[in-house]
Amino acid sequence: MAKQRPPSVPRWKKAVPDLGAQRELRLDALYRVAAAAFRRNGYHGTSLVDIAQELGVSKPTLYHYVANKQDLLFQCHLVAAEQAIAAICDDPALSGLERVRRTIANYIEAIIGEESASVVILEEKSLGPEQLETVIAQRDIFDGRIQSLIEAGLADGSIAPCDAKLALFSALGAANWVTKWYRPNGPLGVGEIAEGVSELVCSGLRAPGANVSTP
Amino acid sequence: MAKQRPPSVPRWKKAVPDLGAQRELRLDALYRVAAAAFRRNGYHGTSLVDIAQELGVSKPTLYHYVANKQDLLFQCHLVAAEQAIAAICDDPALSGLERVRRTIANYIEAIIGEESASVVILEEKSLGPEQLETVIAQRDIFDGRIQSLIEAGLADGSIAPCDAKLALFSALGAANWVTKWYRPNGPLGVGEIAEGVSELVCSGLRAPGANVSTP
Repeated sequence: MAKQRPPSVPRWKKAVPDLGAQRELRLDALYRVAAAAFRRNGYHGTSLVDIAQELGVSKPTLYHYVANKQDLLFQCHLVAAEQAIAAICDDPALSGLERVRRTIANYIEAIIGEESASVVILEEKSLGPEQLETVIAQRDIFDGRIQSLIEAGLADGSIAPCDAKLALFSALGAANWVTKWYRPNGPLGVGEIAEGVSELVCSGLRAPGANVSTP
Repeated sequence: MAKQRPPSVPRWKKAVPDLGAQRELRLDALYRVAAAAFRRNGYHGTSLVDIAQELGVSKPTLYHYVANKQDLLFQCHLVAAEQAIAAICDDPALSGLERVRRTIANYIEAIIGEESASVVILEEKSLGPEQLETVIAQRDIFDGRIQSLIEAGLADGSIAPCDAKLALFSALGAANWVTKWYRPNGPLGVGEIAEGVSELVCSGLRAPGANVSTP
């Protein structure tokens, strides 16, 4: 009889991810590839077959991971919402303006970067009503967090007096629109676009003389 | 036999538009209603039946004016492109920055105003390949005109040194995104949003000290 390995030593010293971790890695790849296809060809212009082909698996295999195309879109929205929240810079040592600038830059890197699950540019009515409600609730949280940063900048004097809601939507518009025009082989890299657009947005908000990054 | 009216006097003194003009008025209404429905519910979430109902006509009646839903979307794109071009302010008596500001404000009024045929926020792949090519060519003309205004502002010193392409896309993003969040019953009117967003965009471009509107 073969000798049993002692249970305290993980198989192959974890060089190979365990089954749960493998499933997570596959889901990450699925959402990334699906979101990129949706952004490129639209939700209705993309089929599960396209996505399966790009992943090198069969369509039936995909059904082990996702119920249908609409569910896949919804999952992309959920992952993208997490990525958006993770982009928020809320360091109280920085001025409100600088926190807005870093947040917009991080957010742009997130939505056009290689790990992006962003589907923000798509027609929202492709989701089911309950899914849409969840997505809107998550987006409201993200919007509210950025609006708070703008209000912090108005309060600490780093942002010139303005309508915080208009400033929020203008900043998000400039940022989200990047997913519409960005091309991976274009003249500007992800980092340059993130810095350039966030700088343009924040120049528009900056109070005269407020160039420092601390409150 | 009924007496013929003299041919030099137009029927009803043109109080009623003639047949050609009536057709034009119906097409205007059709594109306006269709574009608003597409913006609200997405292209795939809108049917010709919805649009016919909103216009108070039957679906078969619509087929006298448009071949199918995709053709209707294409016609909206063409009208919207004309509206966009008409929004451009190219008055050489004004600085480049002021021309950009007025153009963005006019453009926002056009895309969320009552006459809007804008469908810029939709998934472009809903168009056929040749239609898409036409729409992209028209958008490139509009983009190019705005980029020229930005370059004029860089040349006359009203706009601070920046990447003109990034500035163009950021301005268009802030402007186009308005169609995503604007609600007719919201706290801000069309004019306030147009002025507010264009002012935020142009504050971000303004060269220090360049507050005047002349070159």
